Amino acid sequence: MTIGIVGLGLIGGSIGLALREPGRKIIGFDSDPKSVKTAIDRFCIDSEGTFEEVAKADVVFVAVPPLKVVSVLEELQKLKGPDTVFTDCTSVKSSVSEWAKTTQCPDFIVGHPMAGHENSGAAFASAWMYRGAKWILSPTKCTSKAALSKVEALVKAMGAIPVRMDATQHDHQVATLSHLPHAIAAALVQMRAEFEGEDVSGGSWKDLTRVGGVDPNLWTQIFMENRVELSKSIQDLEQRLAQIRQHLDTGNSAEIKKYLEQSRKAKKADK
Amino acid sequence: MTIGIVGLGLIGGSIGLALREPGRKIIGFDSDPKSVKTAIDRFCIDSEGTFEEVAKADVVFVAVPPLKVVSVLEELQKLKGPDTVFTDCTSVKSSVSEWAKTTQCPDFIVGHPMAGHENSGAAFASAWMYRGAKWILSPTKCTSKAALSKVEALVKAMGAIPVRMDATQHDHQVATLSHLPHAIAAALVQMRAEFEGEDVSGGSWKDLTRVGGVDPNLWTQIFMENRVELSKSIQDLEQRLAQIRQHLDTGNSAEIKKYLEQSRKAKKADK
Repeated sequence: MTIGIVGLGLIGGSIGLALREPGRKIIGFDSDPKSVKTAIDRFCIDSEGTFEEVAKADVVFVAVPPLKVVSVLEELQKLKGPDTVFTDCTSVKSSVSEWAKTTQCPDFIVGHPMAGHENSGAAFASAWMYRGAKWILSPTKCTSKAALSKVEALVKAMGAIPVRMDATQHDHQVATLSHLPHAIAAALVQMRAEFEGEDVSGGSWKDLTRVGGVDPNLWTQIFMENRVELSKSIQDLEQRLAQIRQHLDTGNSAEIKKYLEQSRKAKKADK
Repeated sequence: MTIGIVGLGLIGGSIGLALREPGRKIIGFDSDPKSVKTAIDRFCIDSEGTFEEVAKADVVFVAVPPLKVVSVLEELQKLKGPDTVFTDCTSVKSSVSEWAKTTQCPDFIVGHPMAGHENSGAAFASAWMYRGAKWILSPTKCTSKAALSKVEALVKAMGAIPVRMDATQHDHQVATLSHLPHAIAAALVQMRAEFEGEDVSGGSWKDLTRVGGVDPNLWTQIFMENRVELSKSIQDLEQRLAQIRQHLDTGNSAEIKKYLEQSRKAKKADK
């Protein structure tokens, strides 16, 4: 089986590492020669291919930034082999899902692995990054069952857990579960920067700001692509924070306690 | 050397584990017999002592909830041995610092280890919890140098890094660096609870909500004790989030990118 990977960054590189085994040939393409070199040096792919060669693989993973993904999918559909199945890894599904619905291509699966790293590039790729992670797949009415099961099998081979979810529901959920945490972390690190004196932060601060310095180019695209949902999610959090603040300002410890009890209950239910 | 620990929860229990070595005898006191049993079962202390016995130790660590700390310090000062040095571990310094300034006791050091865990109790205590953590000490004008160096030596023995900081500055800093992350996490887990469907969260969400279910009793006290500073800190974050939201609502990707670039810069400077 030949696996093609378009886009050899953190996501594409980790797919390559996670899928490497004797029975699979992994070829990759990236428009940036530096990314190709890193991916080869780190054994993420067996070899570089032209876009045309990669497009002919049995399964092609598209792991390019959000603004590029639709044009890559367009090209792939033109150049792919007759039995090639392809899937994407984009954090926001609106454009990709729109494209999938319009194109009605049975061999394409809308996808998104819920895993990443605060650093970008194949230099940080890891064979284990997808272990235990949910991998969202959003088949359309036109998606063939054979294509879906091929992609699901590879997702499982990477140690990830395939989850089927509607693309609209996906964008709504990731706005809160992924994009909001990144917005919070970005705001927090700026608050810290205005402090004077030695950094005395402990574990909770380190955890909440881990993703505070992610790639501005990539994350601007993600935020903008999901801006309606993300904006709602941010506003929701603002209102909840304002509520806590109001209890603090009025010295209402009973309400603070009630709030924290609800949170504890929610957290326990979430485990 | 005899070490006394008043309050055998996560913090006190971890101090015991971190300080255990043949040359030190560690005795502990807690008003709750269950906590004493857990601390003994987990080898956090060598033996239980009465409050009077623990008060006579060479160095006494007070690790009780914020609302109890001043009354415990009062008792300690009455019952302590002539050479006993004592220190606290409270997350908010205003009341303790006020007490220290009023009492002018040369043997007391205001202290706060910047480490913890999302679970509470000696059942989760760890000998390693303080390794590499900052341990804030806020000596007053009356604090004796001998007392300060005794406590600093023990802090270092636990693998922590003593940092001297004014109590007011401490409360200002921890409002943002510790209490704000807990408020955010508490709000986020409640947002998640209102979602339907399978949990597809990835690493960033898990990190940002790790402390979302902390002990409501303890954290209500912490929030209330530092409510003025925490309220300011929450409002600051709300304003920053509203700014991001405004850029999203107006579709201003240039400003989003600028924001994320500033965050990346701040994060890099913080490492």
